[in-house]
Amino acid sequence: MNFSSKLIEEAVQSFASLPGIGKKTALRLVLHLINQDKDTTKEFADKILNMRNHIQECKICHNISDAETCSTCNDLRRKREVVCVVEGIRDVMAIEDTGQYRGLYHVLGGVISPIEGVGPSDLNIDSLLERIQEHGIEEIIMAISPTIEGETTTFYIAKKLKNSKVKISALARGIAFGGELQYADELTLGRSIATRVPYQLKV
Amino acid sequence: MNFSSKLIEEAVQSFASLPGIGKKTALRLVLHLINQDKDTTKEFADKILNMRNHIQECKICHNISDAETCSTCNDLRRKREVVCVVEGIRDVMAIEDTGQYRGLYHVLGGVISPIEGVGPSDLNIDSLLERIQEHGIEEIIMAISPTIEGETTTFYIAKKLKNSKVKISALARGIAFGGELQYADELTLGRSIATRVPYQLKV
Repeated sequence: MNFSSKLIEEAVQSFASLPGIGKKTALRLVLHLINQDKDTTKEFADKILNMRNHIQECKICHNISDAETCSTCNDLRRKREVVCVVEGIRDVMAIEDTGQYRGLYHVLGGVISPIEGVGPSDLNIDSLLERIQEHGIEEIIMAISPTIEGETTTFYIAKKLKNSKVKISALARGIAFGGELQYADELTLGRSIATRVPYQLKV
Repeated sequence: MNFSSKLIEEAVQSFASLPGIGKKTALRLVLHLINQDKDTTKEFADKILNMRNHIQECKICHNISDAETCSTCNDLRRKREVVCVVEGIRDVMAIEDTGQYRGLYHVLGGVISPIEGVGPSDLNIDSLLERIQEHGIEEIIMAISPTIEGETTTFYIAKKLKNSKVKISALARGIAFGGELQYADELTLGRSIATRVPYQLKV
């Protein structure tokens, strides 16, 4: 593309360096900003710079946070003896969106993956073990993806906690709500028969 | 979505205020920036702010420009007696990308549209007539969309130039290169038969 303007070209390249944004989309965004007044762009840039400069990692749960400890860890109405262990911050958001969970979190920052060179020491596992030992945690819920790497991570953590009294649970797996049986994959369907639950009549 | 962080929420809203970017995409962009170091975000914001604060409108052709007059108007190798009249700056980019045109441009900034309240005085028409009168322009190429509004605009300008010696031409219309006849719309196909051109044998 021929921008015939160094300023435009650089701004387009900046937007296009973001994931999922191509040069055409980037140009559309730049032209949009040009059509707005200068204050709009200033506000846009300020908000993003402000976020990047002040965002921190919660020193308890390693979730992103506006302060030293995050709003979830600071919330005294939440159950402090249950910790949900997740891979990343998007998982925290997904679980929070359900509105079903009132405990705390622990963000590992990934899963153990020898192929990608990620070992236990690269993840926030030590701080999890420390939290369990020192803060009277009764249950950890392993909300980790059911991949080989995820299962390995869960196994590693469970083994480390062998001599601890903490209860370890995993997310229930089965047919999704609204999903039709005929479209469920064999593994999920097979497992959901094997791990069937008593039918509860709600009146 | 529950961000549990004011900083993240504001940055997501900033990205989501751009056209074609929803909240989920905005969150992905914000998380991408968090995963990069602070300098990356600073550079990103700087480039965009710099562009918005220093971009100007060329005072000759009204295209976007890094200086008072744009690089096209300043380019002495271009034919100064031919001016291509377009609606917007994206049209200039599209024509420049063809590499087929070596004249100058004039950006109208839109087309006459009574429904949207756009009259001739809202467009850069007066400055076009002035340019034609004062700078010895021999030909203007009306590269305007073939919509009712576009045709009206072309008609208006042509009428204003009735007593001028300037030659007015329009873009050739017809079957696109690589297009199959059976998929061409009837209007285009009909017109391209009516305006057929002599076959030129190239050896």
